[in-house]
Amino acid sequence: MSSQYVDLTTLKFLLYSVHDLRGVLANERYADYQQQDIDMMLNAVREFSDKELYPYFREMDEQPAHYQDGEILVHDQVLKYMRAGGEMGFLAGPFSYEHGGMQLPSMAVNASVFIQEAANNHLPGYIGLTVGAADLIVNFATEELIAAYVPKMLSGEWGGTMCLTEPQAGSSLSDIVTSATPHGDAYRLKGQKIFISAGDYRGAENIVHLVLARIEGAPKGTKGISLFVVPKNRPLANGGLTGNDVTAVADFQKMGQRGYCTTHLFFGDKDDCSGWLVGEPHQGLKYMFQMMNSARIGVGRGAAAIATAAYQASLNYARERTQGRELTSSGKKDASREQILIINHPDVRRMLLFQKVITEGSLSLILLASRYQDFAQSLPNEAEREKYRQLLEIITPVAKTYPSEMGIISVNNGVQVLGGYGFCSDYILQQYLRDIRISAIYEGTTGIQSQDLLGRKITMQNGLALRLLMEEIGKSIEACRVHSSLSPYAEKLEVKLELNRQVVQKLTGYAGEGDYQRFLSDATIFMEFFSTLLMAWIWLDIARQAQLAIVNGNTEYSSEFYESKVHAMRFYYKYELPKTTGLSEVLLNEASLTLTPEKKIFT
Amino acid sequence: MSSQYVDLTTLKFLLYSVHDLRGVLANERYADYQQQDIDMMLNAVREFSDKELYPYFREMDEQPAHYQDGEILVHDQVLKYMRAGGEMGFLAGPFSYEHGGMQLPSMAVNASVFIQEAANNHLPGYIGLTVGAADLIVNFATEELIAAYVPKMLSGEWGGTMCLTEPQAGSSLSDIVTSATPHGDAYRLKGQKIFISAGDYRGAENIVHLVLARIEGAPKGTKGISLFVVPKNRPLANGGLTGNDVTAVADFQKMGQRGYCTTHLFFGDKDDCSGWLVGEPHQGLKYMFQMMNSARIGVGRGAAAIATAAYQASLNYARERTQGRELTSSGKKDASREQILIINHPDVRRMLLFQKVITEGSLSLILLASRYQDFAQSLPNEAEREKYRQLLEIITPVAKTYPSEMGIISVNNGVQVLGGYGFCSDYILQQYLRDIRISAIYEGTTGIQSQDLLGRKITMQNGLALRLLMEEIGKSIEACRVHSSLSPYAEKLEVKLELNRQVVQKLTGYAGEGDYQRFLSDATIFMEFFSTLLMAWIWLDIARQAQLAIVNGNTEYSSEFYESKVHAMRFYYKYELPKTTGLSEVLLNEASLTLTPEKKIFT
Repeated sequence: MSSQYVDLTTLKFLLYSVHDLRGVLANERYADYQQQDIDMMLNAVREFSDKELYPYFREMDEQPAHYQDGEILVHDQVLKYMRAGGEMGFLAGPFSYEHGGMQLPSMAVNASVFIQEAANNHLPGYIGLTVGAADLIVNFATEELIAAYVPKMLSGEWGGTMCLTEPQAGSSLSDIVTSATPHGDAYRLKGQKIFISAGDYRGAENIVHLVLARIEGAPKGTKGISLFVVPKNRPLANGGLTGNDVTAVADFQKMGQRGYCTTHLFFGDKDDCSGWLVGEPHQGLKYMFQMMNSARIGVGRGAAAIATAAYQASLNYARERTQGRELTSSGKKDASREQILIINHPDVRRMLLFQKVITEGSLSLILLASRYQDFAQSLPNEAEREKYRQLLEIITPVAKTYPSEMGIISVNNGVQVLGGYGFCSDYILQQYLRDIRISAIYEGTTGIQSQDLLGRKITMQNGLALRLLMEEIGKSIEACRVHSSLSPYAEKLEVKLELNRQVVQKLTGYAGEGDYQRFLSDATIFMEFFSTLLMAWIWLDIARQAQLAIVNGNTEYSSEFYESKVHAMRFYYKYELPKTTGLSEVLLNEASLTLTPEKKIFT
Repeated sequence: MSSQYVDLTTLKFLLYSVHDLRGVLANERYADYQQQDIDMMLNAVREFSDKELYPYFREMDEQPAHYQDGEILVHDQVLKYMRAGGEMGFLAGPFSYEHGGMQLPSMAVNASVFIQEAANNHLPGYIGLTVGAADLIVNFATEELIAAYVPKMLSGEWGGTMCLTEPQAGSSLSDIVTSATPHGDAYRLKGQKIFISAGDYRGAENIVHLVLARIEGAPKGTKGISLFVVPKNRPLANGGLTGNDVTAVADFQKMGQRGYCTTHLFFGDKDDCSGWLVGEPHQGLKYMFQMMNSARIGVGRGAAAIATAAYQASLNYARERTQGRELTSSGKKDASREQILIINHPDVRRMLLFQKVITEGSLSLILLASRYQDFAQSLPNEAEREKYRQLLEIITPVAKTYPSEMGIISVNNGVQVLGGYGFCSDYILQQYLRDIRISAIYEGTTGIQSQDLLGRKITMQNGLALRLLMEEIGKSIEACRVHSSLSPYAEKLEVKLELNRQVVQKLTGYAGEGDYQRFLSDATIFMEFFSTLLMAWIWLDIARQAQLAIVNGNTEYSSEFYESKVHAMRFYYKYELPKTTGLSEVLLNEASLTLTPEKKIFT
């Protein structure tokens, strides 16, 4: 295996040259790490992924997780991966030393998981959810709960989950009905949860569920939701475990990510399910949402990883497959010539370049969000930390959505590069296409992310986060003016920023009139507009670092490598950025067509 | 079953009100048919589809066609469907009386197959390819061959295929190497073909392959390709059959359309495979391409049908599923209220309306192409017939591509309407998404259709077809000027036609300079631009007929029905047409980025 699913050179260029990981490592929190430590870690992750992840990727699709005789059966590799992840620090990575963690920056953690997800996106979620659950415990639960659960989770012995969704309340969390009744020092939980990823599997010693539930008598809506630790097996005083009345009753069968189980759980069917309150009563959703940024960036990262693996696969195919010939100057083809590699057909190149700008741009966006996370956590000055919290808030729905939505289209292009073979099970592209589809649904659908972006993040604190973001973009534009090869693109971006100002003013105007329905009715179109624009900034920054390297005669990477990044930026500005023109036309159009009574639309 | 997969009301409105099927039936060739005959037929097709197609749709996906012990095993329903199709005239429909056909107009045939494909897209191809193969024999082969094969094919006793693709020559037909050596009154065939839909299946009495091959000593390239009838079993003088050394060696496993077999065939492995020349030597590709318009429209029709069924499924879901609440004027939700049906969320409506304009627009485009086919075949005046042949030529690549490409995105939206359930195998949306993906690849990929549109159809006879098409669009625009509710949209379309003129002038300019590579390098973008524009015309025509009905107080359909069509047109003009602005920016941009040497792009 030669790690064909990922481009480590680009990953490292983005980490160090574009997003200055060295600058992040300079903070006290990460004092134990230098570039060579991170590089060694990433190389180890790559080797591990070659051996333990990629070889099982197709198999996990062909032998999906499923329910049988009261158990969820998953591929043997799941348990091995959890244990190996404990040994290699995949679980401990992001945690502080005080909790037995490694105190790695998010940038390094996300780069590591990105490689793993590109190798096999059916496995990292088992660890990802365990990390998320442990993080909630560490941040909001008592010392006793931390001591009882976190060490076993970080060692990979126990799994973890987040239990939000219920059958009658998909995205509408205010409608959850799982109940919690006080019982001694704990609560009795009763209810059911669906779509619980990594919710249970044969051989797991224990699974620690972080469950949203309603304490008896709690207020209606989201303000009456509390968070509980509800283990599958209760720890006993003697160090043993006893069943806690949490039952997996089904595993949802899916079109993709079939090796990653998606369970239906019953809590307290026999009235013997104990749960321990995390933090204060009725504050559960607030705690959950503090973890949500990471979870959402994680979904974007996973989508970027799948789309990257698909891009690499179609690129490799296009470099090996011969078919057809170049057009001559008469507009004909000369059948007496040899056939050419399909990478030489302009239309195939266009599809590959499209995949390149989507996937490398998405990865860069994820690393930017990770940098904001790291600064928000590690900078010495609180005002500075707050600034990066704001930037993180506004960029998170984009970091979740753009890689997911555009990733689907990118993989779709990857399938097309292979022609008929792309549709065939013998080739891997079709699996990537099936796998990536869930990304636009996980952790809040695109519709919900878009409402969050426009309805909350753009407007919060009178538009503070947006202003801070525009300042960051402005700095990039200024820095590009000195490069004659970049300044025309910087100017294009500047024009688009003004367009964005007009669009935001128009839309927030509806909110000002109290017409919130209308304000948010095209939020998803706004998401597409805003993220397409933001990615033009992301690409300008990539091109700027490449151009600087060219100018400075930097030889860390080849000159072709640097030129290819500038070329990709130009491709983005020619083919992708113009979409914002049409999208702004939609957003500025005052016709309100989705608020019309149903009968006049769908008759 | 209540035909939930198709909207027959809209189908009939498009057939009669928008595309004037009655006017087509007025031609001599269709003298035996009146509206009531077509309606009866369509109702019978619907009933048949409810009983014999839709109930097997999921099963055929779960029990895919596959190769086992020298045979291709398919679902039992395949043989039943072939026989029933013979009895119901599905095979004989388009053929002339003289060949045992029913002489139905294409519009009626395509409406019938559309219903069947919406019910179960895994089955109609078995009949579709038999029709295509018989059509080639009828049009170009000798009376002897017609007599020997066509009756058994139209009765559904024998299947038929088109054998073009070979492993080393996917889309590049000039590179096929299957050989034909003269042998008595026939030829000995030798070679292999891949991706042969409906290529063989257990229980088929015979399969009649129409095979492209190269006669020994033929010129290189596409001018040396001949067409042969190569049956799986040779008919004997005594009326029996004997094996003809055609062997199915594999069945490609696919991500979708799994019930529709896709075979790998060996011809003449034991040097005992006879083929009979169709028409003249070396003219095979010309014959094949005369059938290609129908085949390509057929792919577009199938994509429109799958996307329609997916739209209906997500629409029904949105009408039954409650979740969330409306935003109040304070921008909050009132948790004490009941949850609402998700069809009331503006973002869900937007996704459903998007599906509506894509699917109904695609169907209308297919019926328009069918009308052109009918006029080209049946009008008394040769100049008129030629006009419609031209219109058919230019519209065919669009009729193949737009429903396919936009159909994929439409079904993708359908999945999103269902949220997490859309990704789950228990719901049917994921199957539609997997099934429709092949449409953009079948019968010439989108890249090839786009090169055909820009490189051939737009420019042929000095742009004659384009001028004729613009005249047709101009008539619609004129007719809309009298309706104050439509004239603003007619004016928008007019502006876009001028933009199209600029784009075509710019691109053909490259060809004029002999730079054909560049001329066609963004052909796929041009396809998207041109088809998005064309669909604005399609929708204007739909809205015009609806508006006329409203003005005239027509009560054939409800006033809500007519209003919903005008509403959908407005939606298309607000949300879809603006895409042409950005696409024209791409096409008018002179930066040539896909012709750069590979090393500077993909390093």
